[in-house]
Amino acid sequence: MPNMYDSAYDLEKAVRESEEFQGLKSAFEAVMNDPSAKQMFENFRDTQMELQQKQMQGEEITEEEVEKARQVVEVVQQHADISKLMEQEQRLNMVINDISRIITKPLEELYGAQEEPTE
Amino acid sequence: MPNMYDSAYDLEKAVRESEEFQGLKSAFEAVMNDPSAKQMFENFRDTQMELQQKQMQGEEITEEEVEKARQVVEVVQQHADISKLMEQEQRLNMVINDISRIITKPLEELYGAQEEPTE
Ligand SMILES: [Ca+2]
Ligand SMILES: [Ca+2]
Repeated sequence: MPNMYDSAYDLEKAVRESEEFQGLKSAFEAVMNDPSAKQMFENFRDTQMELQQKQMQGEEITEEEVEKARQVVEVVQQHADISKLMEQEQRLNMVINDISRIITKPLEELYGAQEEPTE
Repeated sequence: MPNMYDSAYDLEKAVRESEEFQGLKSAFEAVMNDPSAKQMFENFRDTQMELQQKQMQGEEITEEEVEKARQVVEVVQQHADISKLMEQEQRLNMVINDISRIITKPLEELYGAQEEPTE
């Protein structure tokens, strides 16, 4: 029986060599090697991060901010390389979420099994 | 090269059979099979969850609430079975955090490498 760390390093290797990660890497490099796409993408990221931070801190998000974010999303979605990158990110994120659920299943079973059904 | 899902299931098996998970399982079952310890532990969990939720929503936490939480922690820490359970939880959490960091390293390298050093 391999130990958890050995298995984790095997999984890291599988992630690194996966079609999903390689696709993300290519899409990311395409954007990063194009200065105007890079700028647009980073602007999008910064806007998203700002809104997320406000949300986490329970701060009010104004209509103007929502509108600005909507516009930034619209612009990046029309950029072929950036929308490709966002697609690849979503694809790998889904896999990473699946993986997290798989490896924490023992914990979920342990805690879930003992919880009262009414909760 | 095994695919990501095969590797993830191998890792799940390694987690499930690990000393860390088996230790947590025993400690958890000891508390759950003792009605008064179970009640105490769930009270502790509920108090923690309430405070976390308030914090996440940016709500004010009163001095009374901090004091109540401190007392609940003190009580459970003096209960041998519960403090054992909390220790085992921390131990497994540290491993799970390590594992997460290992398997998301390819992503961290990809995004980190292209970020401007001044940020
Ligand atoms: Ca930046
Ligand atoms: Ca409960």
